Amino acid sequence: MPQTRRDFLKQVGIAGGAGVMLHSMGALGLSPAAAAETPPFTPPKPSDLARHGRKSVLILGGGIAGLTTAYELGKAGYRCTILEARERPGGRNWTVRGGSTETDLKGQTQRAAFSSGQYMNAGPGRLPQHHVTVDYCRELGVELETFVNQNADAYLYRTGSHNLAGQPIRHRAAKADVYGYVSELLAKATDQGALDTYLTQADKDALISFLRSFGSIGAKENGDPAASYKYTGGGRRGYAIEPGVTAGEPLSPYALSDVLASGIGNYFSFEFGFDQAMQMLQPVGGMDRIPYAFEKAIGRDKIEYGAEVSAFRNTSSGVEVEYSVGGRRTKKAKADFLVCTIPPHIAAKIPSNLPADVVSALAYARPTNAGKIGIEYDRRWWELDHKIYGGITNANNELGNMWYPSSGFHGKRGTMVGYYNTGGSANTYGALTPKERLAKAVAQGAEIHGPAYTKDVRSSFSVDWATAKHSEGAWVGWPSRTDGNYDKLLEPSGNVYFAGDHMSYTIAWQHGAMVSARSTVEALHNRVVAA
Amino acid sequence: MPQTRRDFLKQVGIAGGAGVMLHSMGALGLSPAAAAETPPFTPPKPSDLARHGRKSVLILGGGIAGLTTAYELGKAGYRCTILEARERPGGRNWTVRGGSTETDLKGQTQRAAFSSGQYMNAGPGRLPQHHVTVDYCRELGVELETFVNQNADAYLYRTGSHNLAGQPIRHRAAKADVYGYVSELLAKATDQGALDTYLTQADKDALISFLRSFGSIGAKENGDPAASYKYTGGGRRGYAIEPGVTAGEPLSPYALSDVLASGIGNYFSFEFGFDQAMQMLQPVGGMDRIPYAFEKAIGRDKIEYGAEVSAFRNTSSGVEVEYSVGGRRTKKAKADFLVCTIPPHIAAKIPSNLPADVVSALAYARPTNAGKIGIEYDRRWWELDHKIYGGITNANNELGNMWYPSSGFHGKRGTMVGYYNTGGSANTYGALTPKERLAKAVAQGAEIHGPAYTKDVRSSFSVDWATAKHSEGAWVGWPSRTDGNYDKLLEPSGNVYFAGDHMSYTIAWQHGAMVSARSTVEALHNRVVAA
Repeated sequence: MPQTRRDFLKQVGIAGGAGVMLHSMGALGLSPAAAAETPPFTPPKPSDLARHGRKSVLILGGGIAGLTTAYELGKAGYRCTILEARERPGGRNWTVRGGSTETDLKGQTQRAAFSSGQYMNAGPGRLPQHHVTVDYCRELGVELETFVNQNADAYLYRTGSHNLAGQPIRHRAAKADVYGYVSELLAKATDQGALDTYLTQADKDALISFLRSFGSIGAKENGDPAASYKYTGGGRRGYAIEPGVTAGEPLSPYALSDVLASGIGNYFSFEFGFDQAMQMLQPVGGMDRIPYAFEKAIGRDKIEYGAEVSAFRNTSSGVEVEYSVGGRRTKKAKADFLVCTIPPHIAAKIPSNLPADVVSALAYARPTNAGKIGIEYDRRWWELDHKIYGGITNANNELGNMWYPSSGFHGKRGTMVGYYNTGGSANTYGALTPKERLAKAVAQGAEIHGPAYTKDVRSSFSVDWATAKHSEGAWVGWPSRTDGNYDKLLEPSGNVYFAGDHMSYTIAWQHGAMVSARSTVEALHNRVVAA
Repeated sequence: MPQTRRDFLKQVGIAGGAGVMLHSMGALGLSPAAAAETPPFTPPKPSDLARHGRKSVLILGGGIAGLTTAYELGKAGYRCTILEARERPGGRNWTVRGGSTETDLKGQTQRAAFSSGQYMNAGPGRLPQHHVTVDYCRELGVELETFVNQNADAYLYRTGSHNLAGQPIRHRAAKADVYGYVSELLAKATDQGALDTYLTQADKDALISFLRSFGSIGAKENGDPAASYKYTGGGRRGYAIEPGVTAGEPLSPYALSDVLASGIGNYFSFEFGFDQAMQMLQPVGGMDRIPYAFEKAIGRDKIEYGAEVSAFRNTSSGVEVEYSVGGRRTKKAKADFLVCTIPPHIAAKIPSNLPADVVSALAYARPTNAGKIGIEYDRRWWELDHKIYGGITNANNELGNMWYPSSGFHGKRGTMVGYYNTGGSANTYGALTPKERLAKAVAQGAEIHGPAYTKDVRSSFSVDWATAKHSEGAWVGWPSRTDGNYDKLLEPSGNVYFAGDHMSYTIAWQHGAMVSARSTVEALHNRVVAA
């Protein structure tokens, strides 16, 4: 990407925001489509290779980064081979269905007994609209539907020593109270002149007008500051008696101090995140529709499954890899280039002739754990009893997040994500046997959802990413991005390139893996055509 | 509904919120399912009528209220006949598809040329999870999918004399800036003691902790109040350069005064509304799947289409109706009871022997206008160029709201709602010919979306509810609900009952029509069985 274009876009973006940005891109002759496809990517074309021959590339790992690499290089005429240790494509993009069998690093084997059509996305489960994952879904014909990442009728559940502890609270009620009190307080402070250093009279008028709508608060009561701009609840919270042919009776608000002490408002910013804000999407039928669509586009014969890499090295003319298939015989493969998409903390342990500083850069990545359980119910009680059609209940106990299914509404059965947790909570659940995980998840879930949570359980399947073979973690973090380790892996080491979501600023998302793969594809291809 | 139960629920609801409510309902022996189904409804049963015979009921209007009435009474064994002026069920629940033809009260005829599978819901277009409409969809087998009522990547567009005028602003950017500045201001006021009358130290600490997450603001800078808790933008707004293998460059925030003067924050509270908060739903394939499912359940032979009522009256033994079919011959029908679901301002004009105060109560309802245009495009440019997959762009010009389709993502074609406006804006558009409406909508839409909005238009269809035959308005309002007019219509006048969304506190929603119909069904049935 030419620096001048980046600088220009950055400049107009900073000065004028997205609107000006869009106009400026038009002025630059960039279509909005190109503008939206960031980071920009110029796919290599077969014609580029006319002078250079069909180079060969070995790709270690058939996760999203490896698949994207093989897909883009393959389209241009490179001879790609993916070596994948698992018996399926996708890596952490893994949809568990009835019959899925997995043995973890502790030797525990689970076999999923989900009914036909029921599944759990054990890895990634949602796509922001702006991710290139969505573009690949379009290109590969993977059908998309809405993923419900936010639901006003889902619950917030907070334990601790405060007055709202142990009480499931609908998001809508929490939001109404927090926004109501925030608005009341800021309107009072503004009206009483506490912010006159920062606000003109016009600002103050506009701010109070906003707050009255935002918080659904009362008007100014002249001569009575305490009574002014009062928040007293209202229909946004929900109703004790819903409106019918007679007026409804809204639920009354919680007290200000109770709301603040509970911390229920601290979850709201989740839904403002660049990558978490609704609208979000999911493939119809499971996230693994993406890797299987890649597999089809690349060619099944280009992927060797069950291939565990035992060594790789740069040679004078290219690269060489040793691997075993099904744990038995050792095979060798050679190619002009190698793209390693194996998780860095695992790649660092594989014998190679990479320089020590490259190996230590790989080992510098810190894996993080995450866990999920899918619980299939014979009755969609969350729809029938709670009127919840998708979305997330967030708890500050080890459950973390509980996902209600985003589709199949009113079906006979449904599969909830009973927990999606990270870090210490994931380790706590991960230390249990699959059977114990279900028992604990059901007990904790029943605190929020009542006894229905314990009934009609048909089957379950849990994943602990720290003990998942070939992953040994959910994703990684870099203690620093500015100390040279990360930058070192952005460059090839001889004929060996690195790619994966860990080589992006969108870690733990398929988008990051794709963006990294595309960057690697461009770098490799530029080197080939420059030769 | 026994008053004691209502009082009890109201009491626990007010004292403890939804959580306590749920527990109390359990304590009362009410299942959560029953709790959710409010207002409560006891459907009449065939066995109830054993002693009383199969009473006959004429229902004026085959909209949602009329269909619900016929469905519930029919299940219990009543002999129901619906007289519907249109040639289809649903009334304002109207899905326009290719071939749909309509002539308005000004004599203008439109014939929709939408492609196969494309449609516009001219009337209701979305369902909150808690509405009984959703229960009827389950009962009648109408498949549901998500309706996207909120999208961080849709735009806000504000004209006026302020610095953000005429610039499309992504919801996410507007939200980040408004929440950022609100948080900065409230944190400053709180920290500086301006709210010490209202907040304890613990409250203050919890509030500031919340605001730092909510607004993504900086920390306290000791000794420098102006620099403390600063909002300086960030990734929530979106990026000038998106993150890739290198860090992204977030778009910079707008200035505080510009944000406040623009009023862009005043739209946010829309999504907090009890009936508008996400998650929302829509029938797969069009909203009219609901009336057609009712028609099938009731029996096609129970509905006479094209039946325009010219008179109705109470008789000594029941009711009598005169109506014409296809504008030709006059027919008469008699029954034990009549349920009038015709819009009140139209019902008031039909000759009857209703008492003058009942007629004047009907005429007391004030119709409001609303308008919509469906524009089918041969290219889903909102997805391709803007990365918008459903949701609403809100403009403060006559367009009001623009809806991107909530499903069919990545399809060949798509149909946008180019405007959904009310009141004066609806009247402005309604005064134009259909051709002029499209031209104006496209010109105004292009201000927001750029030239793509003017290209690839395949067909369009617009509705102006004020000039829609048999509706003459989108919905009604009551100047007062406490002066006796509304209450009068809650009671039968002789053997004539009234129902419709106007007879509810959920006007303009199908839920209101259903709740009203169920209330009428209960009242009529209680009278029959008490006789």
